[in-house]
Amino acid sequence: MPIQALTFDIFGTVFDWRTTIIREGERLEREKGVQADWPRFADAWRGGYEPAMDRVRRGELPWFNIDRLHRMILDDLLVEFEIDGLSEAEKDHMNRVWHRLIPWPDAVEGINRLRRKYVVAALSNGNIALLTNMAKHAGVTWDCVLSAELARHYKPDPQVYGTAADLLGFPPSDILMVAAHIHDLKGAQAVGFKTAFIPRLMEYGPDGNPDQQPDRSFDLVAKDLIDLATQLGL
Amino acid sequence: MPIQALTFDIFGTVFDWRTTIIREGERLEREKGVQADWPRFADAWRGGYEPAMDRVRRGELPWFNIDRLHRMILDDLLVEFEIDGLSEAEKDHMNRVWHRLIPWPDAVEGINRLRRKYVVAALSNGNIALLTNMAKHAGVTWDCVLSAELARHYKPDPQVYGTAADLLGFPPSDILMVAAHIHDLKGAQAVGFKTAFIPRLMEYGPDGNPDQQPDRSFDLVAKDLIDLATQLGL
Repeated sequence: MPIQALTFDIFGTVFDWRTTIIREGERLEREKGVQADWPRFADAWRGGYEPAMDRVRRGELPWFNIDRLHRMILDDLLVEFEIDGLSEAEKDHMNRVWHRLIPWPDAVEGINRLRRKYVVAALSNGNIALLTNMAKHAGVTWDCVLSAELARHYKPDPQVYGTAADLLGFPPSDILMVAAHIHDLKGAQAVGFKTAFIPRLMEYGPDGNPDQQPDRSFDLVAKDLIDLATQLGL
Repeated sequence: MPIQALTFDIFGTVFDWRTTIIREGERLEREKGVQADWPRFADAWRGGYEPAMDRVRRGELPWFNIDRLHRMILDDLLVEFEIDGLSEAEKDHMNRVWHRLIPWPDAVEGINRLRRKYVVAALSNGNIALLTNMAKHAGVTWDCVLSAELARHYKPDPQVYGTAADLLGFPPSDILMVAAHIHDLKGAQAVGFKTAFIPRLMEYGPDGNPDQQPDRSFDLVAKDLIDLATQLGL
């Protein structure tokens, strides 16, 4: 494959959002006595994400970036989970848990190996500030941070992948989209990207229902990002 | 100063475009017998840059990114300097000398020190692909690559700095613009950025006329990026 660049989905593919949110919730419980079913809270927060983006897609909301959509969902969850008494600063800090996500254990090494040969970019629905802070916090290094925000469309809308290819200056067929989610890879493929599927069996926890069966059309399937680097000869 | 992020001008501030172009021209002369006054060629190429951006500003040209403007100027220079016989691939390679610029000797260390504490971003008129390839080639690491391309305006138009602040998610007053050029710093200041002036006395060669006298309104003046890191306590 004549690949020149790799674009990475972030939430779930490179970072373990669920474990991070549960841990931060449990810390809030220890330190401030805020009680909740944190695994259910994490799943509900992430569960609000697709419907929120759909509201932007349908024009019910103007362009709201993911920080803002996360906050909108959080405000509803605080009511639903009966979490009271947080100050505005505490709510803002809680919302920024998405800036402090923990990478999967293979992510830093895998990405560093891939960077030796390829241009390696984030390509997420997360906004640029969120992605930049998250990478810095976790010690992940990107050559370039790209986002749905730059196209004002959310993945898997084709504009996101098209804008990324234009900005990277490579034809789509020279770019490998790396993701744990089939709909993201199919979206990239529709624009002409190559595709690598990384099943993340624990993304949604022990009782979750992650994408597991690769589509036959995917170019690569790897068990994690170190395996992907190895398959690409790095 | 409550700085959270630094945005860097690139051509001349972090990278030594003139020395790079002269060296690559001299190599072309040795290897392929292409003769020219390379210092004058480098100055003419860079000299075409502001007028070309002005044509975009005035609407005489649609949005052309810097790779495309560089190529437009190069095509004229090849005629003016009577450089014949280059293939399309050789012209494209020559135009991409801007992707292979050499950093000033203090740049990699200075930026790495600044990254320990701050979000550190490129903010250049160069397009994203150009900036990404240049950094990777030179071993410079940015937390995030921002460009005039994302605002479809060229610096010092205020839209460029405003877009950068929005994407970084910080108020302009928490961002320090770092540049060797007074007009760039004044443009950033007009939007509320803090400013650091780094005079680059050799940017235009031994007979050049670089900006040397800092404006009194600049927040910091440093002799290079290592000195800037030191002044910021890093």
